Amino acid sequence: MKLTVYLAGQIHDNWRKEVKEKANKKELPLEFVGPQTDHTRSDNVGEDIIGDQPGSVYKDDAASAINNLRTQVLLQKSDIVIALFGEKYKQWNTAMDASTALALNKPTIIVRPESLIHPLKELSNKANVTVETVDQAIDVISYIYE
Amino acid sequence: MKLTVYLAGQIHDNWRKEVKEKANKKELPLEFVGPQTDHTRSDNVGEDIIGDQPGSVYKDDAASAINNLRTQVLLQKSDIVIALFGEKYKQWNTAMDASTALALNKPTIIVRPESLIHPLKELSNKANVTVETVDQAIDVISYIYE
Amino acid sequence: MKLTVYLAGQIHDNWRKEVKEKANKKELPLEFVGPQTDHTRSDNVGEDIIGDQPGSVYKDDAASAINNLRTQVLLQKSDIVIALFGEKYKQWNTAMDASTALALNKPTIIVRPESLIHPLKELSNKANVTVETVDQAIDVISYIYE
Amino acid sequence: MKLTVYLAGQIHDNWRKEVKEKANKKELPLEFVGPQTDHTRSDNVGEDIIGDQPGSVYKDDAASAINNLRTQVLLQKSDIVIALFGEKYKQWNTAMDASTALALNKPTIIVRPESLIHPLKELSNKANVTVETVDQAIDVISYIYE
Amino acid sequence: MKLTVYLAGQIHDNWRKEVKEKANKKELPLEFVGPQTDHTRSDNVGEDIIGDQPGSVYKDDAASAINNLRTQVLLQKSDIVIALFGEKYKQWNTAMDASTALALNKPTIIVRPESLIHPLKELSNKANVTVETVDQAIDVISYIYE
Amino acid sequence: MKLTVYLAGQIHDNWRKEVKEKANKKELPLEFVGPQTDHTRSDNVGEDIIGDQPGSVYKDDAASAINNLRTQVLLQKSDIVIALFGEKYKQWNTAMDASTALALNKPTIIVRPESLIHPLKELSNKANVTVETVDQAIDVISYIYE
Amino acid sequence: MKLTVYLAGQIHDNWRKEVKEKANKKELPLEFVGPQTDHTRSDNVGEDIIGDQPGSVYKDDAASAINNLRTQVLLQKSDIVIALFGEKYKQWNTAMDASTALALNKPTIIVRPESLIHPLKELSNKANVTVETVDQAIDVISYIYE
Amino acid sequence: MKLTVYLAGQIHDNWRKEVKEKANKKELPLEFVGPQTDHTRSDNVGEDIIGDQPGSVYKDDAASAINNLRTQVLLQKSDIVIALFGEKYKQWNTAMDASTALALNKPTIIVRPESLIHPLKELSNKANVTVETVDQAIDVISYIYE
Repeated sequence: MKLTVYLAGQIHDNWRKEVKEKANKKELPLEFVGPQTDHTRSDNVGEDIIGDQPGSVYKDDAASAINNLRTQVLLQKSDIVIALFGEKYKQWNTAMDASTALALNKPTIIVRPESLIHPLKELSNKANVTVETVDQAIDVISYIYE
Repeated sequence: MKLTVYLAGQIHDNWRKEVKEKANKKELPLEFVGPQTDHTRSDNVGEDIIGDQPGSVYKDDAASAINNLRTQVLLQKSDIVIALFGEKYKQWNTAMDASTALALNKPTIIVRPESLIHPLKELSNKANVTVETVDQAIDVISYIYE
Repeated sequence: MKLTVYLAGQIHDNWRKEVKEKANKKELPLEFVGPQTDHTRSDNVGEDIIGDQPGSVYKDDAASAINNLRTQVLLQKSDIVIALFGEKYKQWNTAMDASTALALNKPTIIVRPESLIHPLKELSNKANVTVETVDQAIDVISYIYE
Repeated sequence: MKLTVYLAGQIHDNWRKEVKEKANKKELPLEFVGPQTDHTRSDNVGEDIIGDQPGSVYKDDAASAINNLRTQVLLQKSDIVIALFGEKYKQWNTAMDASTALALNKPTIIVRPESLIHPLKELSNKANVTVETVDQAIDVISYIYE
Repeated sequence: MKLTVYLAGQIHDNWRKEVKEKANKKELPLEFVGPQTDHTRSDNVGEDIIGDQPGSVYKDDAASAINNLRTQVLLQKSDIVIALFGEKYKQWNTAMDASTALALNKPTIIVRPESLIHPLKELSNKANVTVETVDQAIDVISYIYE
Repeated sequence: MKLTVYLAGQIHDNWRKEVKEKANKKELPLEFVGPQTDHTRSDNVGEDIIGDQPGSVYKDDAASAINNLRTQVLLQKSDIVIALFGEKYKQWNTAMDASTALALNKPTIIVRPESLIHPLKELSNKANVTVETVDQAIDVISYIYE
Repeated sequence: MKLTVYLAGQIHDNWRKEVKEKANKKELPLEFVGPQTDHTRSDNVGEDIIGDQPGSVYKDDAASAINNLRTQVLLQKSDIVIALFGEKYKQWNTAMDASTALALNKPTIIVRPESLIHPLKELSNKANVTVETVDQAIDVISYIYE
Repeated sequence: MKLTVYLAGQIHDNWRKEVKEKANKKELPLEFVGPQTDHTRSDNVGEDIIGDQPGSVYKDDAASAINNLRTQVLLQKSDIVIALFGEKYKQWNTAMDASTALALNKPTIIVRPESLIHPLKELSNKANVTVETVDQAIDVISYIYE
């Protein structure tokens, strides 16, 4: 049974590549989808497509509309969501994607370092499973196929 | 027509009192609900009710289960959600409550300072209305009664 | 049994007052809600509350966000929708409100003049009942209480 | 990941062909569906299948029932909706299809010329993304695959 | 706890009056709603409100649109449905109302004579409870208050 | 685009075979599903599988449980429902399947002879399209592919 | 804000009375509902209302249909569910009511003794909060009003 | 038409293998999924993946979170659920899975020995079909393909 996994979370390092490689090594029949990971493109996509905006508020709103459409299309196609929180950045997008997924009854795994236990405690309690590493998240999905 | 408004957001200052007073002055027929605003009680409620836990991860999880139950009961009873973000703290709870409300089709107003425009852009784009002050949020709700 | 009726449609004449008076004369236990009918206020509400915008696209978007929040709150509280189309104006708001109501399983009555039969035929076919006058719409609701 | 796109909007010129050619050139794995674009067939399909009706109201209703069934089948199969508004015609069907899609949580892109910004402002605010050209709509969908 | 009960079924005798009197005698806090029970009015309501139609097919369709709106409004307000089948008539309306109620998760009681066991077996199996008399249906509802 | 069509209705003649042959001749990419059409098997399946029951009420209930499971599985897999009413039999199953399909937003076509217009008027008004012959029903589905 | 609480669980002792008294002492604005607690009546209600059945399987099925209707009516009216498991009996009803409540997004509290931790671990993990005593369950609900 | 069947129930004997072999012999196009059937792995999976927990309550909760995620993923992919109850063990998981499936409108078959008729009567009444043997459950599914 093939499953589609949405990888929510920060786009500042290569964690999605790591997830895919580990899933690959275990030969899990997974398709991974996620947000735009080229940060500049993600921030500029509104002006790139629709044209110049009168200031950064409007530039941000134009970009986020297109990012949200992308997320909505791909999240609706997904069977499982992995949402990774790191120690830097506000990451409200990650919280938004994980909460939306949970409200839509998408099984959701949160990955977060020990240092974030307290501020993430309510979201973590709502999620299906919370782990600390990408390896553990893959182990949880791998368990479905045992 | 009486409406119930859930006030999501940080619990470190008196902004909910300010909202209620302003709604009162305008004589709007609103009932306000929200999370536990006594921070210590909110953090300890798990151990307060269920008893000592073996360490802070488990203490946090016990508290958050009860906080989440409270939020779920009150959010389901609400017609509108105001979610306020301030400049301090992680505030993933606020993002979680706003995103859940939006996924449940609850009309949602985000209040955030100018400094948070960029990190909140996707959530802000998804919300019905985004404003910068509590006064503006009350003005939006007041408009329903004009 | 008290019912709430949302009155969707153009805001350029007094048709909502006419509906209310006729319902009143028949002593029907109805509460009527609807959009902002002061056209200038409706167009300006975004800038009125949030402040000046950089041009009319942004002014329009700010106003429509607040108008949409109002409609969503009141439509969700309604048991029946009357959507009136007249011969002037684009009236895409009316089509939007009627279609949204139908998708949410709100019983919906369309009022339209004979001249609009052809362009409204698909929406009319989807609605519960289509009539030509406000009197007929009130007669349909009155029938529920016979 | 293959996606199905419903092309709502007027049926008086070749814009759907243009969309398909542009998507083709970008080699996007999209399947396009939409309403009957032969205008005469669309208006007559009721009488074509069910037989003569006693006047144009009934002819229109018979045709629209079959057009609505077609739209409902294809819209339910779609992952994304593009709704194009032009400067001519009432286009309430387009508003109806876009609003229904949004109520069903289908990610929706509106294409409209600058001249229609004001009358479409509420629907535009509700849609995921609003653009001015078919090229831009394709760019938005293309972004999902980057 | 007050409950609203929709009384679906034939409109050719006084069974609804009997239900109300029996509920009254048991002092159950029930509100009863149902279809138009004046058969002539029910058949003519389309022409009564909208005007003459070109033949009986169109007369019937006009009436049924208004009857369906009434049923939809009242069924959505109901907590329980009683659907009574008698030995005469086609009673497809009754089957339609009971099936719709069941699909909407409305607790539904079917009342039918022994002679109809076989043709009603699938609907009966789907309903919450099937009984043979109005007294038994009232006993089932009365049990909720024990 | 392949579509699945559920064929609800009486099981006393070969109308389903006729539907399939006509769809075949038009080379429509349709898969047809439906109830058990061997009448004796349909009536006996409860006792066939579960064993003897103490009388016909219980035999009927055992059979209908299994027939209902079959219908629920296949209806949920279907994109369109054709419900055919003939002049004989009670056909409450047909009314139940059509009403359930409509409540689940399955596009539904009713086929009924002229003689049944009056007793089927409410269900007919609720259905997407009503026609008089199997040929017309196929023409409606065929139109989706034009 | 008044809340309705469904008390699922065994009906062999007075725990519901204890819950009500404790809620009363804290002056919480709660309305409590639940299953029939007279065990004999609960087991016999099918035959009491519908008449003698041919053996215990059929007697049990007749009773359970009426018990299920009662539960469905009252559960749909409830804002919170408390499900209590004791050390005796199978209590599959309790598991069924708690699971149904959770699938319907009803906030749910499980009360179970320490001895049942292992066999209830999956249901407990799915519930909002799990406690060991009725006092703790009341404390959780009381917290909503702080 | 290929169908996916979730096999809920105890994991202490080989009944799932028996189901698969019987389906195989009948050449039914079924895919079977279910919980982890290695009991030790199922109990330990929390600690296996996340690490040591401070006592059995926490070990159980960690395991059940991962077991629940697995069940949710696979249940959502299933078209039919078979839930088997045996004479030993508490089996609240089985009751939870069957009840959840029913609340999600998944057609559900219960298999239980005669000795469990009374304690399972409410769940049995809610299920689509109840049988006593695995053979009968396969016969019910096989009937869909006749």
